[in-house]
Order: sequence, then C-alpha cells, then structure tokens
Amino acid sequence: MSSAPAVAVVDAQTPGNVGTIARAMKNFGFSELLLVDPPELDREGEAYGYAGQAREDILPNATEIEFDDLVSEYHTVGLTATTNKNATKHVRYPFSTPDELAEELQVVDAPTCLVFGREDNGLKNEELARLDEVCAIPASEDYPVLNLGQAATITLYEFRELALSSTQLPDVERDRASEAEIERLYSQFDELLAGIGHPDEKRAKSGRMFRRLIGRAHPTDRETVTLLGIFRRAAEELTQDVD
Amino acid sequence: MSSAPAVAVVDAQTPGNVGTIARAMKNFGFSELLLVDPPELDREGEAYGYAGQAREDILPNATEIEFDDLVSEYHTVGLTATTNKNATKHVRYPFSTPDELAEELQVVDAPTCLVFGREDNGLKNEELARLDEVCAIPASEDYPVLNLGQAATITLYEFRELALSSTQLPDVERDRASEAEIERLYSQFDELLAGIGHPDEKRAKSGRMFRRLIGRAHPTDRETVTLLGIFRRAAEELTQDVD
Repeated sequence: MSSAPAVAVVDAQTPGNVGTIARAMKNFGFSELLLVDPPELDREGEAYGYAGQAREDILPNATEIEFDDLVSEYHTVGLTATTNKNATKHVRYPFSTPDELAEELQVVDAPTCLVFGREDNGLKNEELARLDEVCAIPASEDYPVLNLGQAATITLYEFRELALSSTQLPDVERDRASEAEIERLYSQFDELLAGIGHPDEKRAKSGRMFRRLIGRAHPTDRETVTLLGIFRRAAEELTQDVD
Repeated sequence: MSSAPAVAVVDAQTPGNVGTIARAMKNFGFSELLLVDPPELDREGEAYGYAGQAREDILPNATEIEFDDLVSEYHTVGLTATTNKNATKHVRYPFSTPDELAEELQVVDAPTCLVFGREDNGLKNEELARLDEVCAIPASEDYPVLNLGQAATITLYEFRELALSSTQLPDVERDRASEAEIERLYSQFDELLAGIGHPDEKRAKSGRMFRRLIGRAHPTDRETVTLLGIFRRAAEELTQDVD
C-alpha cells in the first residue's frame, strides 16, 4: 500500500469549507493539505472554528501550491458531481466512484492527490482535463450537487483504508460466541420448551425457528451466556413446579 | 426493499447542522426529517442557508416529534462515535458500520429511522439504550469524533441505495468496448510494431505488455476506436516511408 493521498482544494471561496475538510482529514487519517489560491485562513475565523482538532496540525501545516506543480508532482484525481454522459468527451468521462477508486489505489505506489474544486462550480474543464483520473460521488439525479465540505468528507471516508491501519472500533466479529456455546443455547431452549409443556410434535419446529432467529443475529459470547443462564433457570423452576 | 428510512435529530444545538443534514438527505434521496427538541429554524438563518435545495421541501416539511414516539413508531438505529469496548455492556455494543447496516436493512420491511444526537455529546446512554440498533462510523483512533453534519452525510451516503433507485451517473460499465474491438486494437498495435521495425523476437513480448496495460484500463468504445485509428494511420504512414 502506498502512503495516504494528499488532499488539494482549488480556489476555495469560504474558509469554513477548508476547516470542514481539514477535520474530515483528521477523522480519517490524512495529513497533507494543499491549497491552490486559498482564501485567508484567520486563526480566529471559520476555517479554524470548523476544523476541530485539525486546527492543531493539519490546518497550520497546510501548504500553498500552484496548480501546475500539483499536476507535475502527483498522480491527481479530480472530484466532480457533473460527469459527461458518454465517451464522446474525455474531460469528465470515464470516471470512478470513490469506493471503486479507493480499491484501485490500494495497489498504486505513487504520490497521489485528491483534488477538490470551488464551492459553486467545482473544477473547471481546463483544470479537470489536466488531472489523471476523474471521480464522482453517486447521488440523486434530482440534486446531485453536494456541498464541498460534505463531498470531501464522503470521499475521505471512502479512502480511509489508504490512510488508517486501524479504527476506533473494537472487533465485533471476533466477539461472536463459539458454535459450541450457541449449540448449548439451542439445547437449553429445547429444555425450556419441555419445561413449559410445549407439545412434542411442535418442539422440533420451534427449535428451528429459534435457530434461525439466533443464527441471523450472530450473538456475542455475553449475549449467549446470559440467555443460556435465563433459559436454564426457567427450565429448572418449571421442572420444580411440576414436581 | 422497504421505503427510505426517516432521519431524526435529537436536541441539535446549531441550526446550521440541521441544514447540512437536510441537504445530504436531498442529495441521497431521503425526505422525512424528524426533529426532537430542535433549535429555532429561522428562514433567514443558517439552517436554510446550509440546506441548498432542501430549503424548498425537506426543511419546511420537517416534523417535531417526542423521543417516546420515535421509539414506539419506528425501528430505530442510533448513531454513535463512541462504542463500548466489549459485550459486558449493551448500550453501545454490539454495533454495525453504516455499510453493513445498509445492506442488512435492504431486506427489512419496517418504518426505520436513523437517529442522530447532539453536536457535542451525541446520544445519551439513556436514549441509546431505548433504540433498537447501534451504528458507528469507522474512523481514526486518534480522533474518531465527527462533526454532526459530516457524520450524517456519510451515513446517508452509505444508505443511499435504500432511498435512490438510480443516480446521476451514467453507466460506464456498459460503455466498455467489445472484446472483438479491443482485440482489433491489439492486432493494430502489432502492425504498428512492424511499422517501426520492432525486432521480431520482441514483438510478442511487447504485445503482451500492451494487452496487460489496456486490459486493466477497460477502455470505452470511443477510446478503443480512437487509438485504433491513430495506430492504423501511423502504421500506414510508416509503411509508406519504407517504400
């Protein structure tokens, strides 16, 4: 895997959007922010106000760069909401979606940069024509134009595996109860059925119902043990009542 | 597939975030916005300013609702950045990621609602405990807390297939050139090699190189035809030069 892509913003008009992008970068493990013709980024203004903890590092370390240097130094990916309809024009066609492109770039070992355009009009045709790849976020036909900060947030989220080796989330999959434990739960459920005097001819069917329900839920160890204990206790008490 | 989930925001503090969420809803095909204890949404204020075209419908049609009614009327999914570490507590564990949950909900036929919490502290434990499922966006261990509007944008993007039957993007896959046409390109490349006097013993190897390069790129019809024409023209001129 190559290092995390850089993020460039071309000719942003509002500092707040630069701050929003910086925050998303920090949330998803990116660090290199490049600005082409940026607005003034005042430490007391919206860029720093919207950046969250990125105000400490990403935003103050952002680098101004010329568009020409961006093109010559990086493998560039231009983001756009507006694609060409077919292959008769090459400026905005073909394109990839962010998830497709993120997967593709996993095996690309090159300094790569995601390039975002202006709030109102995005990247100009003459800019996009000079970039190496085009990327578009699938959205509603009725209203496909995302706000700049929101578009960048989604793109960086999709590219997170190029920048993060792990996330804040614990590994739920590994916490699934063992098959043996879940089988004990099914047995215990059957004893509960016996305990309530469930008709013999229906016990197998109800057991299958329970197996399907629990099977879909992939219970954790804790859930399985807790439920097992409750069923055991119930079955015991029901059997005592009968005595 | 069930209808598009509703979106609820609990006790939002800043109107701008409600506007951002409304815009993302419109971008990804959602329409039902529910507000629990909302701030004042002034038509001249930030909510409408940030909503883009959602200022025309989603925002003015937003409904105020009590948390109790949310729980009783919907299958609820609570979003949180902070999960429990393991199964010893059940408020924030287990959880799904937005992509997992979106896939799961494709087959669930129930009125569903995605529930977002406050800007600073998200959903309280006593609120989350009453919701049916928990969802968390994977992010950086160092800084997993997303801005409310950005978290909602990513979630709605991941849930778009529950709300949109199609997107603004044309179908690039169907525009791939036919195998026969691409094979003609390979033949023409071989003739180009002949035209430049490429050594016989290297032609097959160079042909394989070209096949691998083009094979990975899945060229469109237009790209293939254009390149084919250029190679043919070059081969013809090279042959004439030899004469």
